[in-house]
Amino acid sequence: MRVKGFSSSAVAAGIRYADRLDLGLIVSDTPAVTAGVFTTNQVKAAPVLLDLERLKQGRAQAILVNSGCANACTGEKGMENARKSSLLVSEALNIPDVMVQLSSTGVIGEQLNLPAFEKNMGKLVAELRPENFEQVARAIMTTDTVAKTAYRTITLGGKEVQLAGMAKGAGMIMPNMATMLAFVITDAQISFTELHQSLVESVERTFNRITIDGDTSTNDMVLVMANGRAGNPWIDEDAQADRQLFQDALEGLLKELALKIVSDGEGATKTITIRVCGAKENEDAEQLARTIANSALVKTAFFGEDANWGRIIAAMGRSGVRFNPEHVDIAFGDVVIVRNGLSLGKEAEASATKILKEKSFAVCIDLKDGTGCEEIYTCDFSMDYVKINANYRT
Amino acid sequence: MRVKGFSSSAVAAGIRYADRLDLGLIVSDTPAVTAGVFTTNQVKAAPVLLDLERLKQGRAQAILVNSGCANACTGEKGMENARKSSLLVSEALNIPDVMVQLSSTGVIGEQLNLPAFEKNMGKLVAELRPENFEQVARAIMTTDTVAKTAYRTITLGGKEVQLAGMAKGAGMIMPNMATMLAFVITDAQISFTELHQSLVESVERTFNRITIDGDTSTNDMVLVMANGRAGNPWIDEDAQADRQLFQDALEGLLKELALKIVSDGEGATKTITIRVCGAKENEDAEQLARTIANSALVKTAFFGEDANWGRIIAAMGRSGVRFNPEHVDIAFGDVVIVRNGLSLGKEAEASATKILKEKSFAVCIDLKDGTGCEEIYTCDFSMDYVKINANYRT
Repeated sequence: MRVKGFSSSAVAAGIRYADRLDLGLIVSDTPAVTAGVFTTNQVKAAPVLLDLERLKQGRAQAILVNSGCANACTGEKGMENARKSSLLVSEALNIPDVMVQLSSTGVIGEQLNLPAFEKNMGKLVAELRPENFEQVARAIMTTDTVAKTAYRTITLGGKEVQLAGMAKGAGMIMPNMATMLAFVITDAQISFTELHQSLVESVERTFNRITIDGDTSTNDMVLVMANGRAGNPWIDEDAQADRQLFQDALEGLLKELALKIVSDGEGATKTITIRVCGAKENEDAEQLARTIANSALVKTAFFGEDANWGRIIAAMGRSGVRFNPEHVDIAFGDVVIVRNGLSLGKEAEASATKILKEKSFAVCIDLKDGTGCEEIYTCDFSMDYVKINANYRT
Repeated sequence: MRVKGFSSSAVAAGIRYADRLDLGLIVSDTPAVTAGVFTTNQVKAAPVLLDLERLKQGRAQAILVNSGCANACTGEKGMENARKSSLLVSEALNIPDVMVQLSSTGVIGEQLNLPAFEKNMGKLVAELRPENFEQVARAIMTTDTVAKTAYRTITLGGKEVQLAGMAKGAGMIMPNMATMLAFVITDAQISFTELHQSLVESVERTFNRITIDGDTSTNDMVLVMANGRAGNPWIDEDAQADRQLFQDALEGLLKELALKIVSDGEGATKTITIRVCGAKENEDAEQLARTIANSALVKTAFFGEDANWGRIIAAMGRSGVRFNPEHVDIAFGDVVIVRNGLSLGKEAEASATKILKEKSFAVCIDLKDGTGCEEIYTCDFSMDYVKINANYRT
């Protein structure tokens, strides 16, 4: 699928490793309305700080992204390197440098390999093509095993509007008002306010509902660029019906990317939805689901295909949320194994164990105490997670 | 070492597995002043609920403890089984059943194998001996690889006072106002108020400062029985000097047990002290140290002997504590690798990597922002942790 007025390219610049795509560029022919959400980690990488400043104008024309180096905890020199890398794009494309958004992922605490950027900028710009979007998705991979993209087409005012998105995982994933890297381009004609609000609300229900290991990165960001080339009637505060259609498409696309991140989580063998219902408040349900989803004991039991609900209820008990243990029902898929806090016996457990052997399943918990309900998406915790993270830098 | 007036015994009762010690009994000849701290998990096991009720009298004469079954999430039947098991002790020793404290560890959600208790009570009581304390320490092991005991002798008013303690780990360990099982017996003569206060303060600085996996059990407890047989002058509110000597001994003993739990953590290959200083408040230092100590990414880097300080500062950034990243110094042992938020380079990192190869080391973080300082003790996160917990019930 091609989104009108956008082109992309990626090259193997040798930023950290030889012979793998590690530098990507996404460009809109004309300035695009651009919104972003960024990591809530207090320690913010240089590109995050620069983007936040530049996005005050609500416009951008290019995203330059690299893997292999996070440019985080790099001080003034890191900021200077970030600015210099955006100047390379600005000069090559003949656009103001403040129209360039930057994004980096990789090892924290090392300075950017700027010569690699300088040497490859010419090639990167020369290879800009509408069809190279998937190549950029490959260039941003670190421990990801597959490139992650998603597409949507909607019709607004008789005009076809396209959305294309990409994301990367695969560890240090528990986004909070942001996520790891994700970029969306669309040719929709939409005001900054509506675009920003659609993004914030969609991220809250998608990327902010996944966790792989409870760690939030210093470099998380989601950027969406809308260049208006579809020619649809402007989506502004007076066009709430179109705004809803657009937001539904955006949210669906982001959810698809978020679930792709979870299923490609470091070492993951299973994707699990933790659904908590019957809580006093939605916030309580979320806190309970998040505590379960981040428990190493629960996640290793999933890996072992063990219907060990005792670890689930023990995690709930330390979550800080008040509930009555004697009201709790727990089901794996549609198999209830705990009713009112008590085991339903060996037979129910045997049926639940079959569910656990599937690649993807839900754990449903009912507190019977109110109407609060939330879902968190996560993965299991395997020996490969440890292997990957014990060896990541070597 | 023998503590006057106490005897112990352990048997292989076949509660869950055949031919391993799994039922233990500790008895004081006379009623002992007894204090306890218990899990803060909202989901509390039957023995915890019963002990809390009985300890209102501040006295006990026996502790009956089993491994193989936690008797947690077992409802009314679980409470009834707990009471029945204490009646077996009460009848065999001819003491009131409210003088019996109970403790269980093992799988959550299964009912106690009461016939195993009934069949073995005679033998358990018959084998009570002053020298069998270590046997009980073996009977409470689950995934522990070594039995954990510690001893202290102090002199109070010219009298020798003995303290003997035992504890078990080795997973679901992030105690909060309590810990996994630990029992201390002493022949000190001490009032309930002083004993209780000494225990609470000591636990706060020992068991509540360790974490293996961030999970808090439903069965955590520390019990201390003091039968006064040493004949030392009463430790009461007027004897603060003796109280301090006693508390120092108790705290030292509990810290020794706590560190033994950490170094025997499930799959652990290293013991690590996380020391955060220069925080605005002690609470901030504790929160930062705890977040680092529970980060799966930090712990797997320790396992991989990788001086990956970027993961440490990223964990600090999501801890919820405000600090200035540009003031942060990080040292592994006495090797500083980060000064004012920036790497000191490859040479410092190479020296730090040597420290990481040791079995035990400290990570010291200075925020240069105040006088708050705290330590948390933890272990690394290995493939064996996953293996143990994926297979624990099978």
